[in-house]
Amino acid sequence: MNAFEQLAQDIKTKNSVVCVGLDPMQATTADEIVSFNKHIIDATHDLVVAFKPQMAFYERFGATGWDAFKQTIDYIHSKGVLAIDDSKRGDIGSTSQAYAKAHFEELGADFITVNPYLGSDGVAPFLTYKDKGVFVLCRTSNPSAKELQDDIYMKVAQLINQWGSGAVVGATYPEEAKALRAAMPNSMWLVPGYGAQGGTAESVRPCFTAGGSGAIISSSRGIIYDKDPRAAAMKMRDELNAVRSHV
Amino acid sequence: MNAFEQLAQDIKTKNSVVCVGLDPMQATTADEIVSFNKHIIDATHDLVVAFKPQMAFYERFGATGWDAFKQTIDYIHSKGVLAIDDSKRGDIGSTSQAYAKAHFEELGADFITVNPYLGSDGVAPFLTYKDKGVFVLCRTSNPSAKELQDDIYMKVAQLINQWGSGAVVGATYPEEAKALRAAMPNSMWLVPGYGAQGGTAESVRPCFTAGGSGAIISSSRGIIYDKDPRAAAMKMRDELNAVRSHV
Repeated sequence: MNAFEQLAQDIKTKNSVVCVGLDPMQATTADEIVSFNKHIIDATHDLVVAFKPQMAFYERFGATGWDAFKQTIDYIHSKGVLAIDDSKRGDIGSTSQAYAKAHFEELGADFITVNPYLGSDGVAPFLTYKDKGVFVLCRTSNPSAKELQDDIYMKVAQLINQWGSGAVVGATYPEEAKALRAAMPNSMWLVPGYGAQGGTAESVRPCFTAGGSGAIISSSRGIIYDKDPRAAAMKMRDELNAVRSHV
Repeated sequence: MNAFEQLAQDIKTKNSVVCVGLDPMQATTADEIVSFNKHIIDATHDLVVAFKPQMAFYERFGATGWDAFKQTIDYIHSKGVLAIDDSKRGDIGSTSQAYAKAHFEELGADFITVNPYLGSDGVAPFLTYKDKGVFVLCRTSNPSAKELQDDIYMKVAQLINQWGSGAVVGATYPEEAKALRAAMPNSMWLVPGYGAQGGTAESVRPCFTAGGSGAIISSSRGIIYDKDPRAAAMKMRDELNAVRSHV
């Protein structure tokens, strides 16, 4: 079973589409990152289908941060949960090949996020790992996303459909999500921007496929810096389940 | 003096626009990377204005690779040369801020390459480091570059002009380079793709500004895996100087 098949199965088994973003913004050391993440993973692992550590917050601490990232992935796996390496890599072919080796083999991630700006030959090396999964940035959740993406996100969607990869579609653009779902009817989506960035259960409704699957929704700050991360994750799970049961 | 001013001065002082890409593709350990790079830096530092380690080839070795990257930057600086961290980062604002801290502060790079796909708010955190320099991907040198970039590279050029950043423009597109130079008359360019990827002194001619400055040209495999890296760097310097003396 490859990573996408495992994810689809976990969505059914756990009755959840929640992904928790491990963005330890407030940590001041790499050790602190690891203990903080373990606390969050312990509190929420049965409620979620994936954890998504954001590489930038680990790289701040250099080599020790890289170790903390790897320890985080190992700990996620020890709880039987899938790990999405949110590092948005992407370069010319020979370089992307080295990134794929780094993130899939050295770090052992199940999924990686990839930037499509360099086109097919920059994405292809990641796709050769058939047991792993790739989420290609299509429409991001940030305010400036429209500056360049408005001109090309439908073309990116067509490429993603050809590549058979997953897609990143922000939770903050319900209208675009409808058109994108039509262009990528079968792709698994990673939907960031829920909670702190403004996405709601209603705004992500168009992201789901029939039966309420086909997308996982990610929240970071809204869960990990809540005073009760477990309660926050449970609330998010239930709000999303209420919406997707009618898709 | 900020990084771009230092670079402009080094181009004059050293009479060179050569950047050597430190892409240790063939290394099998992180230690091997460091000794290999020192050998290349020792052999060529007086002929070049920058070294450009490509992060992917270091990340392959995890935390030890990250250390090797940092040691490489430190060694480049010990020879009085500028270091370009070619890691093509870019994310939403709060995440790009963490990347900027990682690469400018923790690693100590003078320049970083940044992917523009997320728009202004993903680039802005890098630009707040006034003593450092940012090269934003505009037109990359790989075969698939045209798939998405054909639709937006002129818009990216306009944004780069507004941001006042540097630009990455591949050595393999002389026609596009002419139009891009008109759109970004004052920006410093990092021009990869010379040598192994097909770029020549003639094909990069439109990249230079009046007087033959305004661009540095990068070669990786063509220098570092030549049997005589010093001779290869000298040949490249002289070929480029012959062309740019007539711009």
